[in-house]
Amino acid sequence: MGRQTLDIVRSFPEQFKVVALAARSNVDLLVEQAKEFGPDLVACFADSPEVERKAREALPKALLGERGLLAVATHADADILVAATSGQDGLRPTLAAISAGKTIALANKETLVMAGHVVTEAARRHGVAILPVDSEHSAIWQCLHGEENNSIRRLILTASGGPFRTTPLEQLRDVSVEQAMAHPTWRMGPKITIDSATLMNKGLEVIEAHWLFDMPYEQIDVVVHPESIIHSMVEFCDGSIKMQASLPTMHLPILHTLTYPERLDTSDKNLIKELNWPTVARLNFEELNLERFPCFKLAIEAGKRGGTYPSVLVGADEEAVAMFMEGKIPYRGIAEILEAVLERHDSISQPDSAAIVGACAWARSEARVCSAKYLG
Amino acid sequence: MGRQTLDIVRSFPEQFKVVALAARSNVDLLVEQAKEFGPDLVACFADSPEVERKAREALPKALLGERGLLAVATHADADILVAATSGQDGLRPTLAAISAGKTIALANKETLVMAGHVVTEAARRHGVAILPVDSEHSAIWQCLHGEENNSIRRLILTASGGPFRTTPLEQLRDVSVEQAMAHPTWRMGPKITIDSATLMNKGLEVIEAHWLFDMPYEQIDVVVHPESIIHSMVEFCDGSIKMQASLPTMHLPILHTLTYPERLDTSDKNLIKELNWPTVARLNFEELNLERFPCFKLAIEAGKRGGTYPSVLVGADEEAVAMFMEGKIPYRGIAEILEAVLERHDSISQPDSAAIVGACAWARSEARVCSAKYLG
Repeated sequence: MGRQTLDIVRSFPEQFKVVALAARSNVDLLVEQAKEFGPDLVACFADSPEVERKAREALPKALLGERGLLAVATHADADILVAATSGQDGLRPTLAAISAGKTIALANKETLVMAGHVVTEAARRHGVAILPVDSEHSAIWQCLHGEENNSIRRLILTASGGPFRTTPLEQLRDVSVEQAMAHPTWRMGPKITIDSATLMNKGLEVIEAHWLFDMPYEQIDVVVHPESIIHSMVEFCDGSIKMQASLPTMHLPILHTLTYPERLDTSDKNLIKELNWPTVARLNFEELNLERFPCFKLAIEAGKRGGTYPSVLVGADEEAVAMFMEGKIPYRGIAEILEAVLERHDSISQPDSAAIVGACAWARSEARVCSAKYLG
Repeated sequence: MGRQTLDIVRSFPEQFKVVALAARSNVDLLVEQAKEFGPDLVACFADSPEVERKAREALPKALLGERGLLAVATHADADILVAATSGQDGLRPTLAAISAGKTIALANKETLVMAGHVVTEAARRHGVAILPVDSEHSAIWQCLHGEENNSIRRLILTASGGPFRTTPLEQLRDVSVEQAMAHPTWRMGPKITIDSATLMNKGLEVIEAHWLFDMPYEQIDVVVHPESIIHSMVEFCDGSIKMQASLPTMHLPILHTLTYPERLDTSDKNLIKELNWPTVARLNFEELNLERFPCFKLAIEAGKRGGTYPSVLVGADEEAVAMFMEGKIPYRGIAEILEAVLERHDSISQPDSAAIVGACAWARSEARVCSAKYLG
């Protein structure tokens, strides 16, 4: 996501300037990007001692660890923070940026899923806009331009259905890591690709949509749309439906957060491919089969129950997906472990950041415990 | 269109009141409607002496002829005029309503096609909004809510393709009136149904879109979409496409002109059927074949040439369609006559209302002349 944001800055040097830049662990790329974009501040989260050592050497002025992320998120010259860390590490920097009055372009799912009540309340208090980078939420946001929130009947998120949309249910119990990694329409990192195969990802998106658009779960639906051309829809109270479409691209939703309420002409930028209708000859829509995607069902339930359940969902899923990728549990184990961990959890309501992070950590270790039955 | 507007008023008696009501010739229905809605003023255009006699008897207080239309269009208590006359008779009343500062919900195609420069200039001068009732233009309008006009890359009108979308070209020369009347998705009056078969109707819509949205013809495309679920689209300069959808209904676009910028909840009104996505399983898109639809091509050319060409197009088409319905010319004769009449025309630029009506009348008689070759 960071690279794609920089593609945009490269294409529109008159419009945008990178004032601060943070990376997790890819020091070589960070060095290159720092050279090209000349930010005032560079940070590296450095999640291991080796990365830390390498970063100190290559970028002696870089700030390391969470301190670096916080400094980047609150840089005095920044108007907007593109928050694209993966996992929970984005939560505190994002809250810091909100307190500093920055507009947030939010690409990190966990922030809203785990701490939606904290983040939206902080944004309200500081008069800060949280703009969605996910293609689904960007589509909904775009459909809502010029419309009133009280005229929404329901939000309809589209889901590609992933690689197992049509796999016979009995084969789906033990599909391989390779099969789960073969996403039909989007190329993404490994964790989110597995989450897209289980549709956990779509469940997290429903929870995000709940917070971003202040919408009850009863008014958020999901429809399977294998081509990933329609990125989502809004049905209004008068029966009119608006939908947003493009070829699959992350450049477009990122760009929209950077230019809103305007749009920039990308015609000669070689950045966003034009969608030509007679080429896209057919769009299909199918009902979501909950039996096929138990992780989706668990995610929606966790969202509805609220409290620390969504944090437990995130922690348990991170651990379960990691164990699946390591070959320690079968595919069906992901959903089974999620269900078991959620079952054992005692939630608290209106958790603060510490309680959220604590619940997530508890879920990770509990997921390891629950995986024991597959290890024998 | 009038009936459907009254359906809406009937469904939302708290929101709307009919203060003036005009009909062309259906006196019985007008009597009924006047009784139900109790307008302050009733008018009957009465296009024949019999209708006039009947109207005088049944509605002694009704105003007749164009005088009636003008009085309805400028009624002091009206906020909005739903202009749904067919043909050219709506032009003067619509201009009168604009001068009187009324918002115009425009369902009449000919008004903008023939006199787009006059009508849009008058609307600008009087600060009056012209809101589209056609489902295609309503879709575009809805997609443009909250967007800036200078961010449009192109408007994409969808076309069902009519009953002859897949008819072999050699059979298309002489299809029957019955075949041409069998429109796959919309039920409409006979003239517009034939215009939908020849795609003349889509050509007129492109000309309307040109005026309504101040868009060059080069930035207006048409794509064939047989299901008529997506009513049209807007492609923005950043590559994002917004589209509006519903089951085929005229109630929704009419309602939107009456409630804009708000939307009313139609859930329990039995007015607009909900579109359920897994039921609508598939949407198809095809390129428009110009060889199959010569009337469409002639319409776009007439629009681009401007002046009195669009008025000649309208007049010649009205006459040619009438002759086809009467069995006097074959199907292919419609396009042949249009082409011949347009060919013979000497256009003037920036015509006023009189010149527009004059060109249209000339085209009607010229079309009769051109039809001679089919009569022998």
